Amino acid sequence: MASDEKLRFGMVKRRHAETFGKALRQGKVDEQMQPLCSFIAGTKNFFTSSCCSGRIMLLEKKGGKKKDNFFHRKWHRPVSAGELREALAEETSGDLWFKTEPFILHIGCAGLSGAEKILGCMKRAGVKRGGIIVAEKGKFLVELQGTERMEFPVKVGGEMVALTGFVVKALETANPLLEKNYERLAKLEKEFRKSLE
Amino acid sequence: MASDEKLRFGMVKRRHAETFGKALRQGKVDEQMQPLCSFIAGTKNFFTSSCCSGRIMLLEKKGGKKKDNFFHRKWHRPVSAGELREALAEETSGDLWFKTEPFILHIGCAGLSGAEKILGCMKRAGVKRGGIIVAEKGKFLVELQGTERMEFPVKVGGEMVALTGFVVKALETANPLLEKNYERLAKLEKEFRKSLE
Repeated sequence: MASDEKLRFGMVKRRHAETFGKALRQGKVDEQMQPLCSFIAGTKNFFTSSCCSGRIMLLEKKGGKKKDNFFHRKWHRPVSAGELREALAEETSGDLWFKTEPFILHIGCAGLSGAEKILGCMKRAGVKRGGIIVAEKGKFLVELQGTERMEFPVKVGGEMVALTGFVVKALETANPLLEKNYERLAKLEKEFRKSLE
Repeated sequence: MASDEKLRFGMVKRRHAETFGKALRQGKVDEQMQPLCSFIAGTKNFFTSSCCSGRIMLLEKKGGKKKDNFFHRKWHRPVSAGELREALAEETSGDLWFKTEPFILHIGCAGLSGAEKILGCMKRAGVKRGGIIVAEKGKFLVELQGTERMEFPVKVGGEMVALTGFVVKALETANPLLEKNYERLAKLEKEFRKSLE
């Protein structure tokens, strides 16, 4: 590695380590993601930037853009029918979507060979979606994402389109999907621990 | 570019051009994807491998793996309520999911600078998901994917969990999602035409 690449990578890694440490102390890192992120933070050659372990949520969409979305509820764990019924009974405006989202994870490294190691782990863990999204000297970023999803509208324009009974039935499928997502994440962590230094 | 890289890229591009030409003649390339793929095939430095323009479908899941999935119906265009009702009235076994999937596209090039051009186009077109998934000398592959999705179970273990009325209501949201996906794809094509040679 050229010395300017090394220098840049060192700076980027330190900055992300600080951000991660702070988020961890403030309880802002999902519990299911903590062991993986802590391991990566302790390596010499890698860091994590944004990450989410996967979640079930009720999302209020008040416009077409992401910034117009509000979490009516979000859970980074399986959800009970009672919790869901309670949340659905509350008033919301605009569109409301039920969503189960897979994990998403950004891992950084200094160059192409590090990125290829991450992609190798991804393949061995059976993670289907992932690629290098930033390729700059001293700062490569790899995005990895799970594939376990469910998403559908519950309300459109404030009007209920899905019966509560259906949403609760869908939850019976969504909870195992989320568990499968967490199992995949655990497999990925295992591969990282074997291969990343 | 080193001559062995150039040689490998030339071989890979020729092979993919043949596969694409054959698929086009056999009517196997989605109509919405044809202009983009034909443009890329005509460039000097890029090729497409697998691609799908985005679709609405009813998917039979007969097991946990992708190979156990069967298309009960799949449409690469907006769907009418009548078509959907007809498809839902037919017998299916196991689990049945309603899905709206965004486009997915693999573009190949010889090296990192080409891949960065593709990622640049992606950003300017407002496409959120994409990255380099293969980084070999003479063969780089970039995967790009849209984000407009809907997916939920209609039947679980052969038993209806979503009422037909709900699935038809959901279709009223799914059709505009698919249109938005095609608009994004058109934007991406426009950026490619500006930047890729």
